[in-house]
Amino acid sequence: MRAHLDCIACLIRQTLSSARFVTDDEQIHEQVVRKILRQASCMDMDRSIPATAREIHRFIRELVGQSDPYRQAKEWSNNLILKRYPELERLIAKSTDPLETAVRLAIAGNVIDFGAYSSVETVDVEKAIDSCLTSDLDKTQLEYFRNSVSEATDILYLADNAGEIVFDRLLIEQLGPEKVTLAVKGGPILNDATVEDARAAGLVDMVEVIDTGDDAPGTILDTSSTAFQCYFMAADLIIAKGQGNYETLSDANKNIFFILKAKCPVIAQHLDCEVGQMILTRSDAFTDAADPLGQDEEVDSGVGSIASDKRPS
Amino acid sequence: MRAHLDCIACLIRQTLSSARFVTDDEQIHEQVVRKILRQASCMDMDRSIPATAREIHRFIRELVGQSDPYRQAKEWSNNLILKRYPELERLIAKSTDPLETAVRLAIAGNVIDFGAYSSVETVDVEKAIDSCLTSDLDKTQLEYFRNSVSEATDILYLADNAGEIVFDRLLIEQLGPEKVTLAVKGGPILNDATVEDARAAGLVDMVEVIDTGDDAPGTILDTSSTAFQCYFMAADLIIAKGQGNYETLSDANKNIFFILKAKCPVIAQHLDCEVGQMILTRSDAFTDAADPLGQDEEVDSGVGSIASDKRPS
Repeated sequence: MRAHLDCIACLIRQTLSSARFVTDDEQIHEQVVRKILRQASCMDMDRSIPATAREIHRFIRELVGQSDPYRQAKEWSNNLILKRYPELERLIAKSTDPLETAVRLAIAGNVIDFGAYSSVETVDVEKAIDSCLTSDLDKTQLEYFRNSVSEATDILYLADNAGEIVFDRLLIEQLGPEKVTLAVKGGPILNDATVEDARAAGLVDMVEVIDTGDDAPGTILDTSSTAFQCYFMAADLIIAKGQGNYETLSDANKNIFFILKAKCPVIAQHLDCEVGQMILTRSDAFTDAADPLGQDEEVDSGVGSIASDKRPS
Repeated sequence: MRAHLDCIACLIRQTLSSARFVTDDEQIHEQVVRKILRQASCMDMDRSIPATAREIHRFIRELVGQSDPYRQAKEWSNNLILKRYPELERLIAKSTDPLETAVRLAIAGNVIDFGAYSSVETVDVEKAIDSCLTSDLDKTQLEYFRNSVSEATDILYLADNAGEIVFDRLLIEQLGPEKVTLAVKGGPILNDATVEDARAAGLVDMVEVIDTGDDAPGTILDTSSTAFQCYFMAADLIIAKGQGNYETLSDANKNIFFILKAKCPVIAQHLDCEVGQMILTRSDAFTDAADPLGQDEEVDSGVGSIASDKRPS
């Protein structure tokens, strides 16, 4: 999706918040804000916001002289979720629909976002886990997803953030790790997961892990590595986590399922949903997706839920 | 007060909102946003935000070819409050402390702000009137204000917005119109009151009305007319309404009382209050204001209220 005028004020707010996260130096905060203002004043509105965010975060890292200023925050969030892993694994195993529960938890993980939020606390993650199990989830899309997963032989899973990647591991277990390739970012950007986080999450021993060859907070095919582009083109199902991947891939004509929490009004409007809603949705731009269930009748689109008596205590 | 880095994202959001208010032309929205981004990228942080806002609103008016795009909104809000005028006048007359009630209503009027808010509805004004009568108001400052008013012989009242100016008339009646000069903006800017609004509010026949000679959404002395500066320097009490006047005059060494609703976190932090709080406060920068009550003991700073049984039904 192209940049929206409303995104600009938000990008500036987020950029200032990131600059404050990585340094207390107010001169650097001002330098960063002036840089993003200059950059935004002449930005190509046909580019996605993550393309502009990539440039400004390179500048921030250069100014503070740190190649990975979110490293500590990423380790904190990986460890936070790893501690919960056995419990979450049991929750999925005991649920009536393990794939649905794993999708719900993968969406809960999307709350660990130091781009959209200025800080993430343990309590935010706990709340996200609790609410993801009962919030609305589009059942029609879930059935399309289930069908796509069972038909797929080559799934490319585009990770989003550290911490969240541990939740992704739970979903990958349900997809069948043998047919999954996991793609992380090619370099540090915000708290997005890189290969270190895939390793910390125990995913390197479970699936093939590649990187995008790029440090955008999303997946920009034009600036991704040729190797990544090959994986992308070859995959028969792509799972794209988070807003950044939605912003950069919503127009791609591939069989992509986006899994995210809609965190801002512009994305929510684009997805025709409310801010805060849990989203599992197939790309509108995928033209070969007609009748993916092989049937014409409409699938029940009622609200998904997990019976509380089926949840492990 | 100088500009704050947090104000910039807010200024851009407000600018886009204003551009949308005055035209549906999306090309103009984009031109305006690019202009404010360029301008903000090299802004002098020692200047107040209203100085930058003045430039961008001149540009918006030029682009849409309208000298006063908020004229209709201003007339709507003047008429809205004029209809309530007799009732509000009775409310003040019957209250136990008419000056306090008039101050409270003057703060309620500060909700009619098309700069801080993208729209203002009748219901917002009704709510503001209701809540202003019972919300906290600093009693110490009220006593300082009462004392200053009784001692003053030459009060300069700096108006803020149209509609709000009708509430200001209620307060001016309590101050003693014979010692008040009312200053409105020298030209259209947002929904700020100009001489047309002073006339609509019935103030032209009640007090001397001057203008700032400037179209900033605040009072910038350096760019105000020499005539206005003379009135400003000669006054022994200045009453400054709204955030714009606070942002531009908080450092002025004059006996200024600011009357406003704190609408944003930066102003609230500067005033050491909560967002949404009603503010009546003497300028910190006024060095001749020591012990204005002529007593050393502290005045009760409890919450101000108007006994409900004293209110007219």
